[in-house]
Amino acid sequence: MDRYVLSALVQNHAGVLSRVSGLFSRRGYNIDSLTVGETQDPGVSRMTIVVRGDEATIEQIQKQLEKLVEVGAVRLLDSSKAVYRELAMVKVAANDESRPDIIQIAGIFRARIIDVSAETLTVEVTGDQSKIDGLIELLHPFGIREMARTGIAALERGNNLLSLI
Amino acid sequence: MDRYVLSALVQNHAGVLSRVSGLFSRRGYNIDSLTVGETQDPGVSRMTIVVRGDEATIEQIQKQLEKLVEVGAVRLLDSSKAVYRELAMVKVAANDESRPDIIQIAGIFRARIIDVSAETLTVEVTGDQSKIDGLIELLHPFGIREMARTGIAALERGNNLLSLI
Repeated sequence: MDRYVLSALVQNHAGVLSRVSGLFSRRGYNIDSLTVGETQDPGVSRMTIVVRGDEATIEQIQKQLEKLVEVGAVRLLDSSKAVYRELAMVKVAANDESRPDIIQIAGIFRARIIDVSAETLTVEVTGDQSKIDGLIELLHPFGIREMARTGIAALERGNNLLSLI
Repeated sequence: MDRYVLSALVQNHAGVLSRVSGLFSRRGYNIDSLTVGETQDPGVSRMTIVVRGDEATIEQIQKQLEKLVEVGAVRLLDSSKAVYRELAMVKVAANDESRPDIIQIAGIFRARIIDVSAETLTVEVTGDQSKIDGLIELLHPFGIREMARTGIAALERGNNLLSLI
């Protein structure tokens, strides 16, 4: 199944996250990730939804999202014309012997060391999903103690803007 | 109202986001942000919820989350013992005259330039909420065309781990 990224402008109130996620779960759609954050307009939030499915299903989802009163605009993004970014924090088991190796791997991925303890090292990395997955794979042999990922946020490149209708 | 950050380990399936966000919206709780992402365990996702309220309300929220069958562990994080990070992409109006100023501001915040067009410049920044708010405030006079924020992800510092009971 292909992966699709939808960007939506929604009303910034408590119920909208529940309405949108309910729409997906009731229909059994697979959400890979969903992020929501403020925009330059205080009453409006921007939601980025990553879903897997075929093209017909995605078009149906888009139409159903557009029907919700809380949703002001929805666009299916074209990966060649958009930037996708996710943030992950990964806490890895580390000791005096392994610490330099972990720091070197982090450097290759331009990841930042954000916490160090006697037994752990925590790195912060941003990038598209495949970059983050790649770093996690390389850190796996050291022992991943815990991790937190935000899910993907997206913007179209250049002058393309998503705006309220 | 104070801001509280809850970290939860939840079952990784379609309905859990809808269940958790529904719990908040039905009771009129104010969610500042909610992020969810994979963990090192394929069946388990980690959810970070930022809420505003008094201490009694937050304790009540924590108890209600713990009651959900999809929720395996919930912890109220102590800001002095945890790392909070958010990712934001901000697209700013830019021309030959203003571009160097925007790049300089981005540099101060260790933000990365991720897209440039004749009329815009897009930066990616990570940090706690106040750092991101600070950058947005400085970019505001140039004209923010659009932005996407992920919401906050969090991990405890050092050897402290959130694990399934």
